[in-house]
Amino acid sequence: MKKDVTTLKKIAESLNLSISTVSRALNDHQDISSQTKEKVKKLAKEMNYIPNIFAKGFRQHRSNIIGVVVSNVTHHYTTTIIRGILEEAAARGYRVIISESNNDIEKQTEMLNTMIQFGVDGILLSLSKLTRDVDNVLRTLNRIPLILFDKVSSKIPCTQVVINDEEAAFDAVEHLINIGKKRIAIIKEFEFSYNSEKRFAGYLKALKQHNIPLDEKIVLSCEDINLEEGKRMTNILLSLKERPDAIFCITDTAAIGCIKVLKKFNVRIPEEIAVVGFSNNANSTIIEPQLTTIDQPGNRIGKTAVHYLIEEIDTPNNVVTSKTIEIKTNLIIRDSTYKV
Amino acid sequence: MKKDVTTLKKIAESLNLSISTVSRALNDHQDISSQTKEKVKKLAKEMNYIPNIFAKGFRQHRSNIIGVVVSNVTHHYTTTIIRGILEEAAARGYRVIISESNNDIEKQTEMLNTMIQFGVDGILLSLSKLTRDVDNVLRTLNRIPLILFDKVSSKIPCTQVVINDEEAAFDAVEHLINIGKKRIAIIKEFEFSYNSEKRFAGYLKALKQHNIPLDEKIVLSCEDINLEEGKRMTNILLSLKERPDAIFCITDTAAIGCIKVLKKFNVRIPEEIAVVGFSNNANSTIIEPQLTTIDQPGNRIGKTAVHYLIEEIDTPNNVVTSKTIEIKTNLIIRDSTYKV
Repeated sequence: MKKDVTTLKKIAESLNLSISTVSRALNDHQDISSQTKEKVKKLAKEMNYIPNIFAKGFRQHRSNIIGVVVSNVTHHYTTTIIRGILEEAAARGYRVIISESNNDIEKQTEMLNTMIQFGVDGILLSLSKLTRDVDNVLRTLNRIPLILFDKVSSKIPCTQVVINDEEAAFDAVEHLINIGKKRIAIIKEFEFSYNSEKRFAGYLKALKQHNIPLDEKIVLSCEDINLEEGKRMTNILLSLKERPDAIFCITDTAAIGCIKVLKKFNVRIPEEIAVVGFSNNANSTIIEPQLTTIDQPGNRIGKTAVHYLIEEIDTPNNVVTSKTIEIKTNLIIRDSTYKV
Repeated sequence: MKKDVTTLKKIAESLNLSISTVSRALNDHQDISSQTKEKVKKLAKEMNYIPNIFAKGFRQHRSNIIGVVVSNVTHHYTTTIIRGILEEAAARGYRVIISESNNDIEKQTEMLNTMIQFGVDGILLSLSKLTRDVDNVLRTLNRIPLILFDKVSSKIPCTQVVINDEEAAFDAVEHLINIGKKRIAIIKEFEFSYNSEKRFAGYLKALKQHNIPLDEKIVLSCEDINLEEGKRMTNILLSLKERPDAIFCITDTAAIGCIKVLKKFNVRIPEEIAVVGFSNNANSTIIEPQLTTIDQPGNRIGKTAVHYLIEEIDTPNNVVTSKTIEIKTNLIIRDSTYKV
């Protein structure tokens, strides 16, 4: 990891100074004139160079520790990714420390800085839901190898490991169309949720491709999707004059809430209303009827993210080309849409 | 937290040297003779003083970070404790970093040392399943405030936050006896599992108190309890000449496997065989019939552990009396044992 050095070099070249002069200027060395110090510090600031006294001591040797920052460490799907991260890191001789941003952008910045202070060799980050301002993440990226996974952003120029949410949702909705459903509702989150929007785009694409007009009345959104919201929104759908004949829920948990309400009102699943979830939780085979869902390979996402992070850590001078890696999902057809 | 300083002081007193000489000797300072260095290092080693160049910079100020080490960060019940830890820590102005031992005692030691190097203010530890040799944990306890929770050990003299597994299991089995069951099987783990053994003790106590003889044929154990093991052991119980009329599973997940097998063979629940689980997972209300279980208040355990840890961090000179805090559990009666 030589990003800091690279920045030093650029500053030196721009100002026609030696690297050691730049370094001493940044460290307020007495041999450097205050005029030079001011010039160097101004440019360093413009180039986002933030020297870190704690990090320096560590950075010379490897710590063999990977830092992981996620929005919610106890979220089920996230735990499947973490499991993959832990397995691959252990296999490659790395330790892992984990923390959460709790979907709070200030806490995310704080945890990124904590990880850097700690001297981790690199960071795996799944963005907080409300990361509109990516400046702090860019500053981290400038200092240490960083890979984004799951909740990512095109504004951050680094390697990103994701599933193709849009394609996965397209597959789910097309499956409903293929079994003869014509009025397909969606239960999703509000616009600011990255994954939810991608899944909604897949929903729209499938409808369009099969010439099914969009009906806003059966597109329901909430702030934070969960089982109770799944129940609440299913109650709304059942109260409509024209009920849907299928419901695509953008999470399994919402789909389980949905199935519970349908069963309570003796709606036959899938004959009257079919249900599809997303992520293939353990719950999806405990509920009856068992849930048709998209298998999100969390473990593989975690392993892949570790693979690319270690590749960056091992690359001298950080001449790494960022890429987006899409992990394939699979539609798993069960009794909630199609009984054999 | 002055433990390292205390050790330095003791070394200084024992050798009749100043603290600063001891400190410089340990740091190989050029002003100290090699003879003195050798003497100091020998005693330091005997006294388990492990100086850490990284930690020092941090230790002078508070880091306001709590380290958490658990056996499995993705285990559902553990995630409920972690949620409590995160909530209470945030409320008290502390950040949290989490790591797992993966039930590996060497990895546990490594992660404890990593946390100390990092300069956390204190550690919350749930022991790896195979922690028979507690020496390394004692060494950590000697250096930093440490609280045990969930998986604990009487060999470690520190504050411990637990549920009363024995009493909780007693309540569960007595409930089965109260609804008229006379032949109660148990599905548990092998002897080395701390929580499993405590729950088994509660089972034995309830049988004894109600004069029900123990029948080893319906006491089934496995290495690592899970849904598949719950299924496998239920199949064994169903193949017995004298079937049980109730099954107490020491985890909800095993109980769900158990219910799945009973339903497959059309055994009526609870009339023919009643089922009780342990921990009140989200799954316990998704399965049908819904599962009677012990509510393990993970969130409260996490919050309580943070409370006592911060108390120790804030206590000067570490004059803290260790105590064992038992968090109350509740039996939640649902359809798998008693239909209203």
